[in-house]
Amino acid sequence: MTGNQVIVIGAGLAGLSAARHLVAGGADVTVLEARDRVGGRTEGGVTADGTPVELGGQWVGPTQNRMYELIAELGLETFPTWNQGQTLIQLGGKTSRMASNRGAVPKLNPFALADLAQGMARFNRASAKVPLTEPWRAAKARDLDGQTFETWIRRNLRTTTGRAYFRVACEAIFSAEPTDLSALHALFYAHSGSDLDTLIGVDRGAQQDRIVGGSIRISEAIAAALGERVRLSTPVRRIDQDDTSVQVTTRHGEVIEGSQVIVTLPPTLAGRLEYGPALPSWRDQLTQRLPAGSVIKLYAIYPEPFWRADGLNGQAASDEGPIKVTFDNSPPSGTPGVLMGFMEANDGREWARRSLADRRQAAIDCFVRYFGPGAANPTEYLERDWMGEEFSRGCYGAHFTPGVWTAFGPALRESVGRIHWAGAECSPVWNGYMEGAVRSGETTAADVCTRLG
Amino acid sequence: MTGNQVIVIGAGLAGLSAARHLVAGGADVTVLEARDRVGGRTEGGVTADGTPVELGGQWVGPTQNRMYELIAELGLETFPTWNQGQTLIQLGGKTSRMASNRGAVPKLNPFALADLAQGMARFNRASAKVPLTEPWRAAKARDLDGQTFETWIRRNLRTTTGRAYFRVACEAIFSAEPTDLSALHALFYAHSGSDLDTLIGVDRGAQQDRIVGGSIRISEAIAAALGERVRLSTPVRRIDQDDTSVQVTTRHGEVIEGSQVIVTLPPTLAGRLEYGPALPSWRDQLTQRLPAGSVIKLYAIYPEPFWRADGLNGQAASDEGPIKVTFDNSPPSGTPGVLMGFMEANDGREWARRSLADRRQAAIDCFVRYFGPGAANPTEYLERDWMGEEFSRGCYGAHFTPGVWTAFGPALRESVGRIHWAGAECSPVWNGYMEGAVRSGETTAADVCTRLG
Repeated sequence: MTGNQVIVIGAGLAGLSAARHLVAGGADVTVLEARDRVGGRTEGGVTADGTPVELGGQWVGPTQNRMYELIAELGLETFPTWNQGQTLIQLGGKTSRMASNRGAVPKLNPFALADLAQGMARFNRASAKVPLTEPWRAAKARDLDGQTFETWIRRNLRTTTGRAYFRVACEAIFSAEPTDLSALHALFYAHSGSDLDTLIGVDRGAQQDRIVGGSIRISEAIAAALGERVRLSTPVRRIDQDDTSVQVTTRHGEVIEGSQVIVTLPPTLAGRLEYGPALPSWRDQLTQRLPAGSVIKLYAIYPEPFWRADGLNGQAASDEGPIKVTFDNSPPSGTPGVLMGFMEANDGREWARRSLADRRQAAIDCFVRYFGPGAANPTEYLERDWMGEEFSRGCYGAHFTPGVWTAFGPALRESVGRIHWAGAECSPVWNGYMEGAVRSGETTAADVCTRLG
Repeated sequence: MTGNQVIVIGAGLAGLSAARHLVAGGADVTVLEARDRVGGRTEGGVTADGTPVELGGQWVGPTQNRMYELIAELGLETFPTWNQGQTLIQLGGKTSRMASNRGAVPKLNPFALADLAQGMARFNRASAKVPLTEPWRAAKARDLDGQTFETWIRRNLRTTTGRAYFRVACEAIFSAEPTDLSALHALFYAHSGSDLDTLIGVDRGAQQDRIVGGSIRISEAIAAALGERVRLSTPVRRIDQDDTSVQVTTRHGEVIEGSQVIVTLPPTLAGRLEYGPALPSWRDQLTQRLPAGSVIKLYAIYPEPFWRADGLNGQAASDEGPIKVTFDNSPPSGTPGVLMGFMEANDGREWARRSLADRRQAAIDCFVRYFGPGAANPTEYLERDWMGEEFSRGCYGAHFTPGVWTAFGPALRESVGRIHWAGAECSPVWNGYMEGAVRSGETTAADVCTRLG
């Protein structure tokens, strides 16, 4: 009997949310996870003194309603990202401090300021017009999809500083260079997460809150309730389907039969499985064109968050790498002091080739540049190179390269027989975020429920 | 003993050329081919009356010296592509006829003509400056790689007709929209194959000659000499390596051990194999970013090449699809009459989703539009959708999306331990062509020879 047996591939937030929804609906569910842990692109780390730190996705913010509900349902709690003090902005070699409330703007010369304000307004106006479920139907979709975001920036911003600001924002949001992605995708993505200000903001933005104990608690709590339905260290290799069932083969050679399967892997990994019959060309060619971003997330640990005494909130944004964006990721207690930084896009790609020792030193040098000599001697250094992770192959998420939304968009969520697609990249709302992953998992599960015998 | 045992994955032109070179050097070679035939992206077809037609790559032209040598070495012969009569050019709804000699220009209005001439000159000047082995070192490489070819076209051509001409050329050369690829890649690619005029030309161009009996004869002749070293219907699933050897596992579960392995699969397929240890991130993220082009190659067969009597050479180039480019692919005898057409880029993607009957009718409608009512009733219709081919997943070749040459270029040919990469996409010279495949196979084989024990 495979009538109500659903196989979910991937125990990240999308897969676990889908499984939870299916179980609630009475389905018989098996979740197959390649890693020896759940959480996917969220992962729990821990400092030497036992403080939890997130090695992957970590923040929630306003309008991510499903995440806040889920956190509450699971008995978890949030706390605000540390945001007291001033943010450092380094553009063109000049450092300025900026109040950290939303809507604050860096102290730039009047020309740059006007340029940036106009560029942001233009971006948000165009972004708001992109239909979230069908971005390819936006006005001028072909035109916007036919250019890189870099081309858009050059056309719509006139000052070096204004352009630099947009480029840093792009790297921070996509872990990709503005040269890498379609302008239409950048506009879609911002609309999907409300607007550009929300994506880059802390208070009332996408970085507003953290989860007590770490974001991995969400996946762990769902997995605990699913119990033995979740099978770790079980990478999937192949999916076959016929008129009566779907058969999933693991790398260990085990075959698991079901009625439907939900694939929640990032697009580039979903495209690597073997399928019998082979997937239709539009689906295959789509996943050839959705590369994962490039990021190394890293931590320096200090006895105290010393920067706070200097009136700094631990946040920096700079056009000089390899770390261009930092955050104070200390626990609610404030001890130890935890500085977090990202090596993103070309910085991440370049530094992934270097030794751990070199990378550690480069990171510390950046922290010293931002926060002074107090950053020179961390008690501990932690990092996660998401590009090197065999079962992610990049973070935060996939981006649409130019031409892809308009040529292949409809294939993104289109089921192939008994195979259904979910994941952060599939969500019209909060695409690429934990919120998008959960929404996509639940939406797809609801659809699959209607197909069960 | 695995000291001189080399495993070659893929029996296309690159893999077979590599194997041939290795055998000549005394190595013990096994070629593993997923399909039940050799040739990869070249494939032999046949009409009802037994006339050979190429379902994949077919032409050779000047400066493809290795191909002409190889054809002679194998005892094969070439014959000129039919090029007598006039070429049809349809741009903006207007049809003109053009002499088919090289350097001929379509009869356009003077503004369009001047624009096109200037655009071609600009393109060829910039193209000639791109270093073939290291395109990322070109002047303004970051700028050129940061924009789509569509953006380049809009910046460098002013007239609707001039732009349309470049777009049709792009589709014909890359089976991709100009929106899909990096401007730097377009420039590199043209330089790799001499220049733009050569890539689109017949006489003295890349479409100058055909191989008697079909291009598949080359692969078949090499494979025949390799004998039992070539194993068909043996798709590879996984490559493991350690200090002493490399182990290749097939989908049938067989493990073949060797000293070195040459992977000749198109980038997107090479990236899908399992590797132990996992590939370095720069290689994996590169193959996430090299999608295959989109093309359906199709044939309509007639008792005679009736268009010749109308003074036409069977070649059309149009900005109206779904077939925008056609050729007279009749055999040297001239009977039967064979019209060949491509549905490329977005046309191919759209029409791949339609029924065979619809596609056949759309193709015939295009042939009638170009060559008159005589094309309305072919005796036969043949097609190959290369996007749907599980072991190619697109043709003609891969293209570099924006930002990829400058961020990942050095990873293209960089060996990973005992794993070496070859294929048309790896060649600095005639990248993407049969010539590039053979050159890459032989170059890589020569390199591997130096490593054998």
